Amino acid sequence: MPEFFNLVPPDEARARWLAALSHRTATGTAASALEQAIQYGLPVVVDEALSPADLPAFRRSTADGYAVRAADTYGAGESLPAYLSVIGEARMGEVPGVTLGSGQAVLIHTGAMLPDGADAVVMVEQTQPAAGDEIEVLRRVAPGENVLQVGEDIRRGETIVPGGAILRPQEVGGLLALGLGTEERPLVVRDRPRVAIFSTGDEVVPPAQTPGPGQVRDINSFTISAQAARAGAVPDVRGIFPDRPDELLSALRLALAPPGAADMLVVTAGSSVSVRDMTAEVFGQLAAEFGGPGVLVHGVALRPGKPTILAAIGGRPVLGLPGNPVSAMVAFWLFGRPAIARLMDARLPIAPRTQAILTANVASAAGREDYVPCRLVEDGDRLLAEPIFGKSNLIFTLVRADGLLRVPLDATGLRAGEAVTVYYF
Amino acid sequence: MPEFFNLVPPDEARARWLAALSHRTATGTAASALEQAIQYGLPVVVDEALSPADLPAFRRSTADGYAVRAADTYGAGESLPAYLSVIGEARMGEVPGVTLGSGQAVLIHTGAMLPDGADAVVMVEQTQPAAGDEIEVLRRVAPGENVLQVGEDIRRGETIVPGGAILRPQEVGGLLALGLGTEERPLVVRDRPRVAIFSTGDEVVPPAQTPGPGQVRDINSFTISAQAARAGAVPDVRGIFPDRPDELLSALRLALAPPGAADMLVVTAGSSVSVRDMTAEVFGQLAAEFGGPGVLVHGVALRPGKPTILAAIGGRPVLGLPGNPVSAMVAFWLFGRPAIARLMDARLPIAPRTQAILTANVASAAGREDYVPCRLVEDGDRLLAEPIFGKSNLIFTLVRADGLLRVPLDATGLRAGEAVTVYYF
Repeated sequence: MPEFFNLVPPDEARARWLAALSHRTATGTAASALEQAIQYGLPVVVDEALSPADLPAFRRSTADGYAVRAADTYGAGESLPAYLSVIGEARMGEVPGVTLGSGQAVLIHTGAMLPDGADAVVMVEQTQPAAGDEIEVLRRVAPGENVLQVGEDIRRGETIVPGGAILRPQEVGGLLALGLGTEERPLVVRDRPRVAIFSTGDEVVPPAQTPGPGQVRDINSFTISAQAARAGAVPDVRGIFPDRPDELLSALRLALAPPGAADMLVVTAGSSVSVRDMTAEVFGQLAAEFGGPGVLVHGVALRPGKPTILAAIGGRPVLGLPGNPVSAMVAFWLFGRPAIARLMDARLPIAPRTQAILTANVASAAGREDYVPCRLVEDGDRLLAEPIFGKSNLIFTLVRADGLLRVPLDATGLRAGEAVTVYYF
Repeated sequence: MPEFFNLVPPDEARARWLAALSHRTATGTAASALEQAIQYGLPVVVDEALSPADLPAFRRSTADGYAVRAADTYGAGESLPAYLSVIGEARMGEVPGVTLGSGQAVLIHTGAMLPDGADAVVMVEQTQPAAGDEIEVLRRVAPGENVLQVGEDIRRGETIVPGGAILRPQEVGGLLALGLGTEERPLVVRDRPRVAIFSTGDEVVPPAQTPGPGQVRDINSFTISAQAARAGAVPDVRGIFPDRPDELLSALRLALAPPGAADMLVVTAGSSVSVRDMTAEVFGQLAAEFGGPGVLVHGVALRPGKPTILAAIGGRPVLGLPGNPVSAMVAFWLFGRPAIARLMDARLPIAPRTQAILTANVASAAGREDYVPCRLVEDGDRLLAEPIFGKSNLIFTLVRADGLLRVPLDATGLRAGEAVTVYYF
């Protein structure tokens, strides 16, 4: 279908594609869901969770010192201390057994519960012992000083995490602080998308096999698998298929058949025009069988990654990647990652990026977005971006790189000394 | 040991600590090692790997077109095409059965092997069919044009990955492209460090338990676990211990005992001075039993995270974190992450960061490094950093944040409108 081969800008291509993806993964309430984040550091996507309680649930001291009535310290200073009588200790994890009256203080540690009657804590270093049970307070405190109020961290009914949040360690903490994600209060968690990955090419052999003359080892299955896993998916490497539409069609059909249908298909195909057209034709055939809308984008104004095919089959994302391993990785990062997020209704966080000073001129063409591998070098307080030149199909340009320098669609290149945006890759 | 409580700048504290860590995890050659990177996206650390072969192993076309002798196209142009005779096709994955002579061309696809006698490829769109087996070449090509030379990606004997590399998807690809990481050619991989995590505090209960008055749920065990897993470790949550030295000492001793000794210990303790001193004393006792050098830093010029304790016991990293969950996470990020890398002799990549424009004044004190949670907001081409104010022990300040704004040691604050560095967190 060469008529599809009108280059679409990457942002428009992605928006058009994502809008056509109606399929979503299922939700579940496995109590062990948090475990994946806690034990393996994997991204886990949850539905909105509201706080069932105020946190903290009681007034807590934020310092070691004495719980007091702030009014009793008014006017206190180094030269004119306030004298208070210590009537007890607020022990960690317990309700203080005393109620504070005027002129009284209670010994308290960081994190302990304030006794009734107290409204502030004076730090121990701002006191000194006096006669008997008395202390001298050397500085006045305001009401609420050194006290964490009830609900100051989060209030009952407030949102702990919005729907589609991808849990970081701090969200794990926020949820557990309120008892969510336990057997008793399980979270609603999105199933991780199953991404079936197909490599094609008559010249491609498995990595464990020694390639014959003219043959190369499959790496795309594994680089894409690692990228998909990092994005929160469960990758499923389906193997290498020859450049014949019937075999690829059978393999893709099998992956889409229930039970255990894949949520997303990724095919890395050779870069020759005939092979790309074959891939698009196979996607069209699948759309006829499983529902569409079929091929949406065939060719993106992008380098590397121009021959990318974006399709939706039965509302599921189907991604045709160039066979060139660098193109495949860049295109997966631009399109595959957000599709995985969409399958879980996840909020894709801002892609980590940095500004850096370009060390060499980079040529491009207007109307095309370029991503150039570059090394980041610390130079005092600033970062330098050293472009790594080399043909765009050399995987070692990415191995040597810390990130990808973006040359915007409308730029004809970037000049040494310019401040540029580098995406961590 | 309050005499230890001299605040040390974070960089100096980290350097002093890391230098004392003589323990390393073992290396192995599990063929399945890459699987953790491929299937789960986990960080895997490898020893140096050298390329056993040139990649590519044969001259490959980077375009669809015709393999030619460049000299045959000299002077060719739209108005004066060169006429070449097509003598065959270079099929994907095969050795071309023909040798190219003067005035001859061979049909070739992207990725196929160049036939002997050819030294360039002319793109199909720069040719047109002529009579019989002939084509017209409409543009001259230089020798090597549209050809990937043998060893252009990597040469035999060159470094694929340096020792201590943490594998990203592209390193996985680079290794597999040369057959490394397979049964036949296993990689030397560092064992993931086992990090035993202890929570202490009389007021702390497990997350599944409903806290009584004055009690709080343990979250530090799980936030630190998730952070450690992301850093490449195998976290081992050992439970909650009361504020009594004997029980903590027994538990830590057990974790250090062979077989299956932990490679690193992390203790989150209450923030009160007495509890911190108890933790440092327990570390000192362990050093007497298992070897030192013991407590190296007790107190860091850092907010949040001041009461951090850095110790080495039998050359193993032992980290005492403040009980305050925000302090614990920030201090783990600054100290725990690099210690995990050190245990594997891994090269810690540059911490992902960005520049952003600060939207509000932030106060600090000279002589102290501050980390302030902030939200990143896209504002056209630039990013804004909105500080999230609130007491430094509120976990939801981190939940609402995209990163940590760093206020350098020597700054007394930062002003709205300044360009600042934000670390993704």
